Amino acid sequence: MRIGMIGGGGVAQTLGAALAAQGQDVVIGIRNPSPEELAKPRAQAVPLAEWRARTGAKVASFAETAAGAEVIFNVTQGQHSVAALHAAGAKNLAGKVLIDVANPLDFSAGMPPFLDRALSGPTSLGEAIQAAFPEARVVKAFNTIAAAVMVNPGLIPGAHDLFLSGNDAEAKAVAAGIARSFGWTSLVDLGDITGARAQEAVLPIWVRLWMTGGSPMINLKVVRA
Amino acid sequence: MRIGMIGGGGVAQTLGAALAAQGQDVVIGIRNPSPEELAKPRAQAVPLAEWRARTGAKVASFAETAAGAEVIFNVTQGQHSVAALHAAGAKNLAGKVLIDVANPLDFSAGMPPFLDRALSGPTSLGEAIQAAFPEARVVKAFNTIAAAVMVNPGLIPGAHDLFLSGNDAEAKAVAAGIARSFGWTSLVDLGDITGARAQEAVLPIWVRLWMTGGSPMINLKVVRA
Repeated sequence: MRIGMIGGGGVAQTLGAALAAQGQDVVIGIRNPSPEELAKPRAQAVPLAEWRARTGAKVASFAETAAGAEVIFNVTQGQHSVAALHAAGAKNLAGKVLIDVANPLDFSAGMPPFLDRALSGPTSLGEAIQAAFPEARVVKAFNTIAAAVMVNPGLIPGAHDLFLSGNDAEAKAVAAGIARSFGWTSLVDLGDITGARAQEAVLPIWVRLWMTGGSPMINLKVVRA
Repeated sequence: MRIGMIGGGGVAQTLGAALAAQGQDVVIGIRNPSPEELAKPRAQAVPLAEWRARTGAKVASFAETAAGAEVIFNVTQGQHSVAALHAAGAKNLAGKVLIDVANPLDFSAGMPPFLDRALSGPTSLGEAIQAAFPEARVVKAFNTIAAAVMVNPGLIPGAHDLFLSGNDAEAKAVAAGIARSFGWTSLVDLGDITGARAQEAVLPIWVRLWMTGGSPMINLKVVRA
């Protein structure tokens, strides 16, 4: 599968490396893939030149990455996701499975972040992306756990859940297949893309559990009667 | 223990009946405890006259209820909680354990509700109550499950969690003791009252799980590495 990551941070690198290790054709897309940019240190991640050497995958521009991909991951900071996806180009997203991993976190009041008011409440980042790119097949997934857990759920022992939502059943099945390839066995389908409101609202409790417990190796399990 | 419920709806009636059945001295407080008001049908609850007859507990005004109680539950609709507690009287709350069970749900866009913008993001209802009544010892608890589960966690089989937060360790211990008396064994302390942001943010996913799964008999279990 030809997979493009929109964003070059720690989540992009972790997901991209895991997919490249499966033999997928992975490209990380950033705004300006110059040699200087690829050599730069990155927060909670390695320089992209180093990531490229380690994985054998590629780094390209947002637009090249999206144009060449069958499945696209949005792994940008949530407040900037719609702008980054516009830079990737609506025509390059049309018809594609677009897995939205981002969270619209607002750090303007320091830690802990809260959900951006323009992208929460009666809406969500997932919905904003689907509205901005109506021809993309948006699936919200992987946004409620640490990057290391996304690609290796066994890092947290026992049963715990991965949430998915989206309007396109086939696109959701593609995202679910990728999740299963990482070892996820318990997928919770939250329905259409308005389910992204619920998935993004997990962040405040996830961050709080990290702050009070000392580790981001946390997930939730839904328990029903 | 003398326990006052501020609010007379289904949550107040369920918690109040369970505490009265333990032999606690329970009073439900409403704005206007007239015979006409007590005879009125109530949404997802019985008329208070009927509740009173069933439980042997009492119904009084907000202020009388708060004045006579050692432990007070806020079981009003979250958008109206601060006003209801003002009607109960700051002096009647001073020094008391005040267990805030309410959620600041905004139904103005229909179902599903979202978190009231004035009481979410970088704040919460729990914090707003603590700020409005600095002498009360506010504990956020019981707000992430259906009323029937609050008083009988065994309705949902297996391990699942009750979240608590608050600034006063002794008040949290009182709330935890009440939870244990209902059968809760797994309590997750989220720290000071800013933890209420996380607890209230559980509502969007809880409501979504109800909508997609067909039953409110749902809770979450935190799973850690």
